[in-house]
Amino acid sequence: MPKIIKINHIGIAVPDIDASLTFWRDALGLEVDHVEEVASSKSMVAFIPCGESDVELVKPTADDTGVAKFIAERGAGMHHLCFEVDDIDAMLTELKAKGVRLINETAQVLPGRKMAFVHPKSTGGVLVELYQLTH
Amino acid sequence: MPKIIKINHIGIAVPDIDASLTFWRDALGLEVDHVEEVASSKSMVAFIPCGESDVELVKPTADDTGVAKFIAERGAGMHHLCFEVDDIDAMLTELKAKGVRLINETAQVLPGRKMAFVHPKSTGGVLVELYQLTH
Repeated sequence: MPKIIKINHIGIAVPDIDASLTFWRDALGLEVDHVEEVASSKSMVAFIPCGESDVELVKPTADDTGVAKFIAERGAGMHHLCFEVDDIDAMLTELKAKGVRLINETAQVLPGRKMAFVHPKSTGGVLVELYQLTH
Repeated sequence: MPKIIKINHIGIAVPDIDASLTFWRDALGLEVDHVEEVASSKSMVAFIPCGESDVELVKPTADDTGVAKFIAERGAGMHHLCFEVDDIDAMLTELKAKGVRLINETAQVLPGRKMAFVHPKSTGGVLVELYQLTH
């Protein structure tokens, strides 16, 4: 039985990383680990550790991404919730068997991790991401 | 300087706790610690531990609450992000000094915790809650 280990990160959709950091870094006092361009999701991401999880500020770098559409339709704010699992392939098999609708039927393989999104239709409106770290 | 310790919980607005548990408990395999009525926020809450944080499913029990209005206006989904801090009074003083708009200018004192909400206008659209555990 595959298991969720912890919340890996909360993804927050932002129109501007620097402007957002005036709250998350300068006001709340959180420390930014790094900011990097994530080509696979056409975004700039600020990684902000908070206990065993991260707050990830995600700024779209193209208009055709899910995050860009989310901001256009609903405004900036919490975008997705990412859980770290011990076996993502087994978890996806299990979710499918239980009738859960997946955005990614099989995990995408990226350097250091495998990942997949679960459709908000099956979660009660939450875009759930699953990660398995592979390094 | 007051500090954020970790994510205490993610609050998820749901119209029905039992229906929601078919995903969070039955499909994802998370375990529910308990479900209780929280009179102060007119809601039923399912507390679901996940690593050092909780997923909290919040079902409003009255139509005039923030969560009920959120569901009516935006639909079910992620509602707030709660950080645990070591000194909430100092944190609120600091946030005010930095021009951050607060929903609660001073912390509400409840059994076992002090809490306050930061206005989404100052966070980039995220309803941020602050907790200081006092037991």
